[in-house]
This record gives sequence, structure tokens and C-alpha cells, in this order.
Amino acid sequence: MLVVMHSHATPEQIAQVIAAIQGMSLTAHPLPGATRTAIGITGNLSAVDPNALAGLPGVLELLRVTKPYKLASREMHEADTYVRLPQTTIGPGTFTLIAGPCSVENEEMILRTADFLVSQGVRLMRAGAFKPRSSPYAFQGLAHAGLEILAKARARTGIGIVTELMDTENADAVEEAADVIQIGTRNMQNFSLLRRVARSSRPVLLKRGMSATLEEWLMAAEYVMAGNNFNVILCERGVRTFSDHSRNTLDLSVIPPVKHLSHLPILVDPSHGTGKRDYVPAMARAALAAGADGLLIEIHPEPDRALSDGAQSLDFPGFARLLESLRRLADPLGVVIN
Amino acid sequence: MLVVMHSHATPEQIAQVIAAIQGMSLTAHPLPGATRTAIGITGNLSAVDPNALAGLPGVLELLRVTKPYKLASREMHEADTYVRLPQTTIGPGTFTLIAGPCSVENEEMILRTADFLVSQGVRLMRAGAFKPRSSPYAFQGLAHAGLEILAKARARTGIGIVTELMDTENADAVEEAADVIQIGTRNMQNFSLLRRVARSSRPVLLKRGMSATLEEWLMAAEYVMAGNNFNVILCERGVRTFSDHSRNTLDLSVIPPVKHLSHLPILVDPSHGTGKRDYVPAMARAALAAGADGLLIEIHPEPDRALSDGAQSLDFPGFARLLESLRRLADPLGVVIN
Amino acid sequence: MLVVMHSHATPEQIAQVIAAIQGMSLTAHPLPGATRTAIGITGNLSAVDPNALAGLPGVLELLRVTKPYKLASREMHEADTYVRLPQTTIGPGTFTLIAGPCSVENEEMILRTADFLVSQGVRLMRAGAFKPRSSPYAFQGLAHAGLEILAKARARTGIGIVTELMDTENADAVEEAADVIQIGTRNMQNFSLLRRVARSSRPVLLKRGMSATLEEWLMAAEYVMAGNNFNVILCERGVRTFSDHSRNTLDLSVIPPVKHLSHLPILVDPSHGTGKRDYVPAMARAALAAGADGLLIEIHPEPDRALSDGAQSLDFPGFARLLESLRRLADPLGVVIN
Amino acid sequence: MLVVMHSHATPEQIAQVIAAIQGMSLTAHPLPGATRTAIGITGNLSAVDPNALAGLPGVLELLRVTKPYKLASREMHEADTYVRLPQTTIGPGTFTLIAGPCSVENEEMILRTADFLVSQGVRLMRAGAFKPRSSPYAFQGLAHAGLEILAKARARTGIGIVTELMDTENADAVEEAADVIQIGTRNMQNFSLLRRVARSSRPVLLKRGMSATLEEWLMAAEYVMAGNNFNVILCERGVRTFSDHSRNTLDLSVIPPVKHLSHLPILVDPSHGTGKRDYVPAMARAALAAGADGLLIEIHPEPDRALSDGAQSLDFPGFARLLESLRRLADPLGVVIN
Repeated sequence: MLVVMHSHATPEQIAQVIAAIQGMSLTAHPLPGATRTAIGITGNLSAVDPNALAGLPGVLELLRVTKPYKLASREMHEADTYVRLPQTTIGPGTFTLIAGPCSVENEEMILRTADFLVSQGVRLMRAGAFKPRSSPYAFQGLAHAGLEILAKARARTGIGIVTELMDTENADAVEEAADVIQIGTRNMQNFSLLRRVARSSRPVLLKRGMSATLEEWLMAAEYVMAGNNFNVILCERGVRTFSDHSRNTLDLSVIPPVKHLSHLPILVDPSHGTGKRDYVPAMARAALAAGADGLLIEIHPEPDRALSDGAQSLDFPGFARLLESLRRLADPLGVVIN
Repeated sequence: MLVVMHSHATPEQIAQVIAAIQGMSLTAHPLPGATRTAIGITGNLSAVDPNALAGLPGVLELLRVTKPYKLASREMHEADTYVRLPQTTIGPGTFTLIAGPCSVENEEMILRTADFLVSQGVRLMRAGAFKPRSSPYAFQGLAHAGLEILAKARARTGIGIVTELMDTENADAVEEAADVIQIGTRNMQNFSLLRRVARSSRPVLLKRGMSATLEEWLMAAEYVMAGNNFNVILCERGVRTFSDHSRNTLDLSVIPPVKHLSHLPILVDPSHGTGKRDYVPAMARAALAAGADGLLIEIHPEPDRALSDGAQSLDFPGFARLLESLRRLADPLGVVIN
Repeated sequence: MLVVMHSHATPEQIAQVIAAIQGMSLTAHPLPGATRTAIGITGNLSAVDPNALAGLPGVLELLRVTKPYKLASREMHEADTYVRLPQTTIGPGTFTLIAGPCSVENEEMILRTADFLVSQGVRLMRAGAFKPRSSPYAFQGLAHAGLEILAKARARTGIGIVTELMDTENADAVEEAADVIQIGTRNMQNFSLLRRVARSSRPVLLKRGMSATLEEWLMAAEYVMAGNNFNVILCERGVRTFSDHSRNTLDLSVIPPVKHLSHLPILVDPSHGTGKRDYVPAMARAALAAGADGLLIEIHPEPDRALSDGAQSLDFPGFARLLESLRRLADPLGVVIN
Repeated sequence: MLVVMHSHATPEQIAQVIAAIQGMSLTAHPLPGATRTAIGITGNLSAVDPNALAGLPGVLELLRVTKPYKLASREMHEADTYVRLPQTTIGPGTFTLIAGPCSVENEEMILRTADFLVSQGVRLMRAGAFKPRSSPYAFQGLAHAGLEILAKARARTGIGIVTELMDTENADAVEEAADVIQIGTRNMQNFSLLRRVARSSRPVLLKRGMSATLEEWLMAAEYVMAGNNFNVILCERGVRTFSDHSRNTLDLSVIPPVKHLSHLPILVDPSHGTGKRDYVPAMARAALAAGADGLLIEIHPEPDRALSDGAQSLDFPGFARLLESLRRLADPLGVVIN
């Protein structure tokens, strides 16, 4: 951390800041410049809250030098993380598709979807039994009955299940039914929930919060990893900006920095990212070309009758066409569609 | 809802949309215009998901006419809501101060703060026993020991307690210790938590999410009210934008629309809104002038030694000066500081 | 346009709005619903400012149905626009590269760059003689001397020139030197400048404003087209959001809606979009996969000595490697790199 | 500036960065820490572009310590700037109202407005002769005929004129007609225009760009001041965010940092900030309480017939009521309404 002093800061004020730093058992490195003094701080910064220094007289601002995440950081752990599942492995070199309906609506549509995905060579299915809906009056999911349907689909087809956990009460049940536990956008900083899945043996798919910076997102991953669950899969799903041409602003530009700063795999959800079926295939291909490790994508046997997110779901023929175009692109990029 | 058709939409496409609307047991009102046809929809829209219509051929976009919130809406409930507490009442005509440290650090500082607030005529104290921190390595609060300290402060001074609930596990304990249960920014759309406090007898202070639209915020309030807890207090605490001169962008301009669209009281948190002690008093006065019903504000006996949020906390003399300036302003505005 | 009335609006208020609409020589279509009345408006909306209706008693809000752009709209002009230049044609089916340094620094580096680009098969070079810099103390470009250097490069190598025009004073000179006139991000809504290039015979490359919605961007294109210059090339270069992992947030998700709503070609600038050399190639490939019609990209013979934007410029070997990877991707996508 | 090295940076990479800094005639101060080395840079940073260092091997990021603005900075110029006009003085201690219609529509409405303002004790009138409109088909202002009407209003009533300049071509004419030249939001970074008004003898009212950071805004002021025009008045008018409850997000929280970092006066435009007449008075009062030096506010004799911005314009009685409430608030705040 660097404390930047006001250009008019007095020697006494500078001395006071240095003393305060030392009082926190940290080391101060004064760095006098032409117009102002800056003071570097080294030592164990996580043990104290040096932000309090911002209130001292003569201090202009604090600049952080060290990133607060450790386990999620590539500086600490250079090798890419591969998340191994019974059905497949997620990480660089492959491009993993996780497809399925927004929510479990009934057994028939889930089995139809699972059969279709298996026929296409897709090994993981997404579908929500617990649905976070912005309206209390909207369809909230089938809950435990939905989990049972998902378990049946897995038993019958061998497909892996990715499904969302919204609260600690249902953690055991979701762990039982899911191969990957999804933490939704609105819960990215639900720290109690993160601490719970940190104790799980299941990998965690961690969606980026609606307005989360990359650092906050990696800190959320850090919560899971700090509890000894190192199998975290990041998922970009669009962030909130002024831009109104799509449901969210899909931030594909986060992929290279994620790969630079972290060793964790990253998927992209072009369905929530765009909110509009017609825009999904182009963004899916762009995600592949940008270096993502896979997709989380919504498909539905009859999108126009879906109970939720129909407008952004592909139908089966549309998904098959997308898959084919992804396969053609994968080869020159040196990755395998999975 | 209004379905806007493409200017080249065929009569068959228009007929198909009308049929789909009727298939949802809704009524379609075609509205032919010079360049395109729009189709109004009336009926019980909450029972179905008309967004699926967006995927039909020839549809350009959907425009929603009706607001999705009901209980939180002033159209449904014209009279202002007053939230009555043992210590005071929150709502128009008064300007209620809720002050205290970010977190309960120890008994001594809580009792000192409570005594100070009582001496200033302030009737409600804020302080967190459970702290949502973006880093798993940062101070996470004293938890149940913190709640006990708050209970002791209330018992000794009569001051009302506002404290945050982060998860359903601790709901009973927080309900026991708190006069008002605070739901934090990161949990505004933690729907499981909202459903839990909807069953509580305590009023709920609902902070606005980091990037929540007004509609999403009122829908979160609707979750609480739909469970029969009508005592919801909104709290604006700054939103996330590109702007980097302060920790968040305090959106005081949300106050008039809140008052227009809803009957619920609204407080402002200038401490999180600015992140910097020196900027807090001006924003506190602006909140009063803008029509807010009160403040949630951080003070600390020794801000430069605070375990969290020290940079944005006022010390006691600073708070006393602010209070005096608020009292001078309140009179010409026709409100009473409480 | 649709006028949404308050649920408590009186019949008199509804009648007053209808009368006001008719007073603007427009037609009102009342649409009574279960909870409120909406009133559709048809007629020539551009002749009046119907926003004034928002102030009438009983009006809740106005919803616009018609898009305000006409010439830029695909509804009005279904066929894709191809911008024909002496050196190449920009539009669907090809992926056009426009590469070069941020600014013209001296003759030697421009000629080196032009020679290199020609050797790579690239037909258009970008370089700024007039530079919009956020600091008055930063290098502002070589101005007319810079244009002369660009003219020399074109004369010697045949390469086409894309360069920025910042003000009407220098319009004649830039027109003389450039094959394509670039309008920068900060000038997207400099309407006097747009009206000037609308009278030019040169195509216009119109960068998206820092926080422009798609509609505002297409309206800026409309300014140029309304003056009879139909050769407009859009260029996405990153927008401003809360996100801080890159210089701007490159909004690739705007490409499908641009193609849906407009017939104009769209390029992507991954250099300004990311601000960091290492992130440029992945975003360049993603732009191709997302359906863009080309790239505007910064390269420099010695990026670490560049007078501006060095951190985001590729060196020549880096660009050659990128070009090769784009060529491999182009084939399965059915486009030709140009 | 501080160069933060990667934790794995080699001694050679550190030496290369130090050499590069010295090659720019700057001084390098290595600051070794527990996990990484940072390197402070001192010297004349404006002469070179140290951003190029970001591309060197082993560099993690650059952190700027020094602010790039000088003349606009309070560190350089501690005393508040007062902008003196023939009619009044703008600066701390007074709260100056600048009111009037969005655009000059005809002579009659301008004279009526001027007479009304004079009768209320208001000394400055705003009205646009040149209007930046997002649509080329919307009313663009009366241009020179509008300036003549404004000149007549000034001659007859003595009221001061604030009007917008959109391009250098009309600079002489606007200078002639205006007491204060307004630079609009969309032109905040039109550097050619800023350099032109920097040579003017008229004060400049500089509106904040739609998504301008405080630093960019002060740098735009620096352009004007660097040309020797020190009479710059800042004006906050709402920024662009995800928030959709108002036309823009009025950022009152920028006022304390402006006062902290700069000596320039700052006004607030609650009309564009909210876009809705009913929300204007609350935001006007909040601006006064937040420490602004005045308002730029839209009024119209018949808002519902306005050619532009009618929905956000107050009528005369509404303005008179607002003025009275501001006068009551001003006294306890220790300022004088002007």
C-alpha cells in the first residue's frame, strides 16, 4: 500500500502517518518527490485495516499495491486449474458445454432435454430447481421435486447436473443432486452461502455479480477456496451498465485478465448475457474465440412456452446448428468441444 | 404490456402473436400505426411469462406498461407508511438518525457510543455483529458475542438497535437483539433471506443493491411485504457507476421517485455513499433537503483505530456538529430531527 | 408512442391528454386496461416534441414505440451497406484490417509501418495527425505536417489512410489526406462536426461515444446520412462502465443488435477497448467470431517508445502472429481477411 | 507514478524498468516489499508518456500518484475562485440562480421570461440559440436570430445571458451576445472548442460530460485555463449510469470532492439531472445543502408547449415557490441567494 500525502503536508503530518503505520506493526518507506511525499507500506497487511490511515491529516489518498486474493491468484499458483467431474474435465484445451432449460418445469421436458444433449455429445445439463426471481409472484421453481427429476435424468442418461443453490437450508439436497453447485449472480457476495459451499465436495460454478469488479469476483472465489474447496469455475454472464441494447452487457473482455490474474477456468453464459435468442450464437462463438473454457447456455424444447427465460433460450435445432459452428471454429483455435 | 411488431411484419405474424396472447388467457388489442402495428395486452399478467412472446417471428420488442410491484406501490396504497418502533417512528415529517460504528468491536466502545448518542437525543444505534466483508481474511464481526453487547447497550440506555442479518441461521438471534433488522446491499436479492424476514415481527431496513434499479429495489420490498411484514424502510447507500471520486455514487435523486412511486420511508447512508469522512456532512444535509426520512450514519469513538470503515466514520465531535447543522436546516423544511 | 396513465387518472385527465395529442395533429388511440388506461399515438412524431405530454396531470410515463433513426435503420433499408474504397470494400463477407500507430510521430515510423502493412496484405493504415488528448500538456499530434507524412505514405505504397478529424477548421485538409475520415469517441455527438462530414465525399468511420446507447450512436450516423453521405462505418471501441480490469469495457455484444437494427458495417477497436497489448489478440479474434466486419487496431514499430498509447500497441511480430490466427479462423466463419 | 512489479519479476526485469525510467530522464526509486517490488518515479512526468512502461516484462500495473491538473487544482491555488460578472459574482457564500427556457423559441417568450426573472431578483438567464439535439430532425434552435433575441432581452432588462456555444464558427457571435459561454455536456472533451474559449474574455460554464470522471472534467477546465481564461464555472448535470428512474443520475456527491480538489465554483443543473419537473425542486434544495454555488435551471412560460425539454421545465409559479423555499434554507446554511 502507498499513502500519498498532500503537497502541503507538513513534516509533522508525515511523521504522524509513519508512526501510525508502525503502530500497526507495519514498515513505512517514505518516498519524497518533487511535489509531494508518498509513503510505501510493507508487512502483513491483511491483519489490520490500513484504510483508517485515509483519515489522518495531510493524507491525500491511499493506493493499494498488493492484490487481496491469494489462493485464486496465478501469482501464487501458476498452473491452470482443471476441474475434474465424473463426466468430463473443465479447463484449458477443452471447451465445455453446459446446456439446458432455465428451470425444471416437469419431468418430461427434462428427460427430453437430457436425451437430446446426450445425442449431441454434451455431457453436462443445467436446470434450476430453485429459481431466484425478482418478483415474489413469478414461478419460483419446483424445489425438491425438481431435484428429484434432475436425479432421475442423471440416473437414466449419465448426464452431469449443474444446478443452483440459493440458501444453506437446501445445501445438502443440492449437493446430493448436483455434480456442480451453481452460485447465482445475486448471491456472489452471499458470504454465508460461500462459506457453506466451501465445505462441499462438489465443484462450485460461481457466476459474476451484476456489478462485480474482477477483484471482487476473485475474492468471492477466495472465500470458497479458503474453506478448502479449490474446484471453482468462474462464469461471466453479463454485467450491468447504461447500455440497453441487451439484457446485460456481456463482458467478454474479462476473459484475458481472468486468465492473466488467476488459474481458475472461466465459462460464459451468452443467454443471460444477451437476453435474446437471436444474439446468443454470435456471442457463443465469440466466447470461444476469446479464450473461454466453455459455455453455460439455455435451451428449451419449446422456448415460446417456457415458464422463464423463453426469449433467450435456443430450441433444439438452433442449438445443434450452434454446436456445429463451434466445432468448426474449435479446430483452428486448438481446442476440443466437449 | 405492449408488443411492438417489426414494420415488415406480415398479417400472419400479427395473427400468430394475437393467438399466442389469447393462448395465455390474456386479451390482445391490436393498434395499427403508420409504420408498424403494436399490440396491447391486458389481463392477469403475473400468472404467465409473456416475455416468451419476444421470440415470436415479426416481434421487434416488448414494452411493459404495468409496474410489477403492488404492495410497495403508492398506486395501491396512497397513504405514507410510518414504521413505529418503541423508541420513535420513522416516516415523513421527522428525520430519524440511526448512528453508530460499522461493527461491534468490544463492549466498551458500544456502551460509550450508546451513551453519547443518548446524550445527543439520538434514539437508534447501528452496529454490526455479523459483517459481510469482501475478503475472507478481514474481520468478520463478533457474531453472537456482538449481539449480546448490543442487547446490553439497549438494556442500559434504552437505545433502539439496528443490526444486520446475513443469513437465515442467525435470524432468531438477530430478531431477539434488534429493533430493526438490516438487510445489506449484497443481500438485497437474497430471496431466501427476504422470505425469512417477511415472517418476522421486526421492521426491516432494506439497503439498495449495488446496481439495483428502483424497480428491483421495490420488488425486494415486495418480497418482504408479500409475506405480511409491511414495515419496510428503504435505505439508499450509493450505487456503482464509472465514477471514482467516491467509494460509491450516492443517488439522492432516487428520493423523489421513491416518494412518487411508493409509500415506504427512505433513509440515506452518506457514510457508505461517500466512503470519506470529510464528504459525509454535506451529503447528510443534502439528504435532508432532498426529502429523505432520515440517515444511517457511521460514527466511532476513535475512527483512526476502527477495525472497519474508519475512513468514513465521523468522530463524536464531528457528529455533534453535523447534528446541530441538521437541526438548523430542519426548521425551514418543516421536519423534526429525531 | 404510448402514454401510460396513472391508475387513478380521472376521465377528465385522460380526455385532456387525448386533446393535447390531437392539438399536436397526431392521432390518439385510447387502450383501457384492468388497472390503467394507456393511449397510443400515431402520426408524424418527428414534427413535434411529444415529451411535453409527460408533464400533464395523470400521466405516469411515456413509452416510445418507434425508433427515431430512419436512414440508418434496416427496417427502411434492408440490404447491407458496403463502403467502397479505392483499396478495398468494407462490409459483410470480408473482415477488413485497419492498422497503424496511435499518432503520426515522424516520417520514418509511418513509412516503416506502411511498408510492413503492405507486406502483410493489409490495405488500410490508421494514424492520427490531430490527437484528442485529455491533458492540454500531452503530445497533441503533428497536425498538418502529420497529414503530409500520411499523404507521402499513401503515394509511395498505395495504402489507404484513415485519420481523425477533430474540428471543422481542418476538414478540407483531412479530406484531402484521408480515404476515410475518422470521428473520435469524444466527438460522436459533436453535431457541428457531423454536419460537416455529412457534406464530404469521403466515408466516415464513426466511433461509438464513451457512454452512447446504440440508439444515440445510430442517431449520430443519421446526422451524417441525413446530409447525404451514406458511407458510414461504425466502430465499437469500448464503453465506460464500473469495470476496472481494462481501460474500457469492449462491448462486443453490440454487434448482433447493430446488424439487426441497421445495415451499416461495424468494426471493432480492441486496442482502446482493452488498453493492454496482451489482451488485444483474444479480443480481435472474438470480434471476428462475433460477426464484426473488421478491426481498427494499434501497432507500432517500437511500442515501448511510443508517444501515445504504447501500452496497447502491438509490435510488428505480434501483429503478424495475430493476422495469421485471424486467417485460420476466417475460413470456418466463411469470411475473407482483407 | 508507481510501477508495481509482478511477484515473480526477475532482478533483470526490475533493472530493465529502472533503466527505462532513467532513459526518460526521470528518477527511479525501487521499493522492495515482502511479495513484490514497486518502483517509485519522480521528475517531470508531463514531458513523457510513462504509460509505455506498462508493456515491459514483469510489470504488473502502473499507479499514478500525481494528479494531472495543475491550474484547476486547489493544491496549486488555495483560494476559492470567484467569477465576476457585470450582474453578479459566482462563488462561495452566494448561491446564484441561472434560469430560463431550454431554447430561444421566439422573442415574446424570452422577454416574458426575462421580465419574470428580474421581478424575482434573478440576475442571469439561460436559453439556447444553438441546440445540440440527438436527432437531426428535431428543432435545432434559432441560431443567430436567437442570439439577437437574447441581446434584446439583455438590453431591455439588464439580465445577464448564459448561452451555449457548439462550434468555433459561431464563437464570435456567442461571445458578443453572452455574458457566460456555456460548453455543453457532449462537448466537454471537444478540445478544439475548449482551446477557442480559452482565448475568450468571457467566463466559461463547463458542463460535466455524460460519463466524465472528476479528473477528466478538471482536465477539460485545465484546457481553458491553460489558455489563460481562468474564469471557469463547473456545472454538474447528471451522469449516465444503469439507473433508469430519472433521465440521468444527478451526482451531487461530486460537490465535496470538487471543493476539496479544486478552487473553481460549481453549479448544479437539476433539470437535466432529473428530466422530470416534479423532481426538480427537491434536487435544487439538495444542491444548495450539499454546498453547490448555484443552479442552472429550466423554466418556461408554458412548459407543456415547449419545443424542447418541456417535461423538465418549471412554470413561473413553480419556480417562484422553489425560490422562496431556497431563500428559507439559505439562511441557516450561511449563504445568500442571488
